[in-house]
Amino acid sequence: MRRIKLTLAYDGTNYSGWQVQPNAVSIQALIQKALERMLRHSVALSGSGRTDAGVHAEGQTAHFDTDSTLSPFRLRHSLNALLPPDIRILDAAQVPNDFHARYSAKGKIYHYHIHLARESNPMTRLYRTPILGPFDREAFEQAALHFPGTHDFASFANEAHRGAAALGSIRTLRRLEIFEQSGGLRLEFEGDGFLYKMVRNIVGTLLETAKGKRTSDEIPQLFEEKDRKKAGATAPAQGLFLMKVLY
Amino acid sequence: MRRIKLTLAYDGTNYSGWQVQPNAVSIQALIQKALERMLRHSVALSGSGRTDAGVHAEGQTAHFDTDSTLSPFRLRHSLNALLPPDIRILDAAQVPNDFHARYSAKGKIYHYHIHLARESNPMTRLYRTPILGPFDREAFEQAALHFPGTHDFASFANEAHRGAAALGSIRTLRRLEIFEQSGGLRLEFEGDGFLYKMVRNIVGTLLETAKGKRTSDEIPQLFEEKDRKKAGATAPAQGLFLMKVLY
Repeated sequence: MRRIKLTLAYDGTNYSGWQVQPNAVSIQALIQKALERMLRHSVALSGSGRTDAGVHAEGQTAHFDTDSTLSPFRLRHSLNALLPPDIRILDAAQVPNDFHARYSAKGKIYHYHIHLARESNPMTRLYRTPILGPFDREAFEQAALHFPGTHDFASFANEAHRGAAALGSIRTLRRLEIFEQSGGLRLEFEGDGFLYKMVRNIVGTLLETAKGKRTSDEIPQLFEEKDRKKAGATAPAQGLFLMKVLY
Repeated sequence: MRRIKLTLAYDGTNYSGWQVQPNAVSIQALIQKALERMLRHSVALSGSGRTDAGVHAEGQTAHFDTDSTLSPFRLRHSLNALLPPDIRILDAAQVPNDFHARYSAKGKIYHYHIHLARESNPMTRLYRTPILGPFDREAFEQAALHFPGTHDFASFANEAHRGAAALGSIRTLRRLEIFEQSGGLRLEFEGDGFLYKMVRNIVGTLLETAKGKRTSDEIPQLFEEKDRKKAGATAPAQGLFLMKVLY
C-alpha cells in the first residue's frame, strides 16, 4: 500500500465547495470518482480541509491510498486527463504512510483579493471582490494590525469548529499582510489553523472599517465578546484562495 | 441629437463575439437591447471593430446617437444595471457628431497572454493560452523581431479585409513587445489597424517557432508569399484582449 499526496488548484466557481455533499457537485467527489475510474478500486480522498462554494485553491492538498504501481508522474497526467480544466493536479508524490493531509498540516496560507475601482472588472469578477466607491485605506490598514497573534477568534467563526474541541476557537494568525496589486489589494493570511469562514469574516470586518461603518478601536472588544453577531458580515467567497498547506 | 461614445470591458467567454449574428448571443446585441430598453427608442450601436468568440476586451469602444438628455454618468450606471457582470461600461462620454468608433480610430492595442507551465491554471484558463512543455524563449523573441514595421500581412490574415480595399493587406505594426508576467508572457501589439485574426495568426507563428516547428529565418519569406496557408495556425482566442482603441 502506498500513500499519495496530491497538490491541486481549482476554480471554485462551478462547485459546491471541496467537500462531498448530497445533491451538489463537490471537487472532492469529482477527483475521487476520477481516481476510482483510473485505479479500479474504491478510493477515500482526504483533503487538508474544506473550502466553500466559490472559494478557489492554488495549493489545496489531499491524500489517498492505493496498491497501484503507477508512477506519480503518470498518475498526475492520467488524472488531469479525466478532470475538467477548472481542476488541475499540480503535483502527485508518494509520502510516508503516516502522512495525513489534514492532521499533519502545520499551517495554511490564504490570500484574499480586493478589486478597488469605479466598476467591477468582467475578467476578474470571479476572482476578486469588487469594492466600489469610497475606501479608507488607512482605516483598513489600522484595523488589520489588530489581528495577527494568538487570539480567541470566536467572533470571527461562523460555527463551533468541530473536531478540535481542546483548542476551542483559539488560533494563531502568524501574518496578515496587505499588498498593492494591479487594480486593488491582496491580503495574505498565514496561521496555524483557521476556523470556519474565519478569513472571510475578518475581511468583512476590515471592509466595514474601510467603509466607515465601524472603527478599528472596536476590534479588541470584538475579540473579548466572542460573539459572531458583533463582527462584520462574511466577505464574498470569490476573493478567497487557499494558497498553500504547510507541513 | 447627441452622439455618445462608450468604452467597455467584457469577458468574451460566454459570447459569440462582438458582432450581431443570427442565432447566437453577441455582445453588441446585448448592449444595443439594453440601450433600447433604457432609452425607449431604437439604437444603432457601432463598434470599433469586431472581436471573435472567446476574445476579451478591456477597452473596446462603440458609439450611438440619442435625443435623451440623460447625463453620461447616469447612462453608464443605468446601462451597467441592465447588463450582465461579464460586460461593464467603463465610461460614457458625449463626443462630436462626426466621431465614429471605427472610422475615427487611429490605431489599436491588443495584448496576448501566454501561460508557461507544467499544467494549465484553472483560474486563468479563460484568459491565458497555456503552453505546456518545451518553449524556446530565444527563438520566440528572435521571430517576433520580424513583425514590427509596415508589411503586407496577407499571410497572417484569415480572409480579405473587407471595406479597406485601397489599403489591401498592408498594415503598420508600430510595436510588438514581449513582457514577463506572473506565470508567463504578455505580448503587446500596437498598430494602425489589424486584419482579421492577424494577432492570433502572428502569435500562432511565433509559438510554432518556440516549439521548434519552424525557424525565425522563414518569416521574411512568409511576408513575401502572401499565403495564409504558409504561416502558423491561429492561436487560441482566450489569450487575446483588445486593450485600447486609439483616436
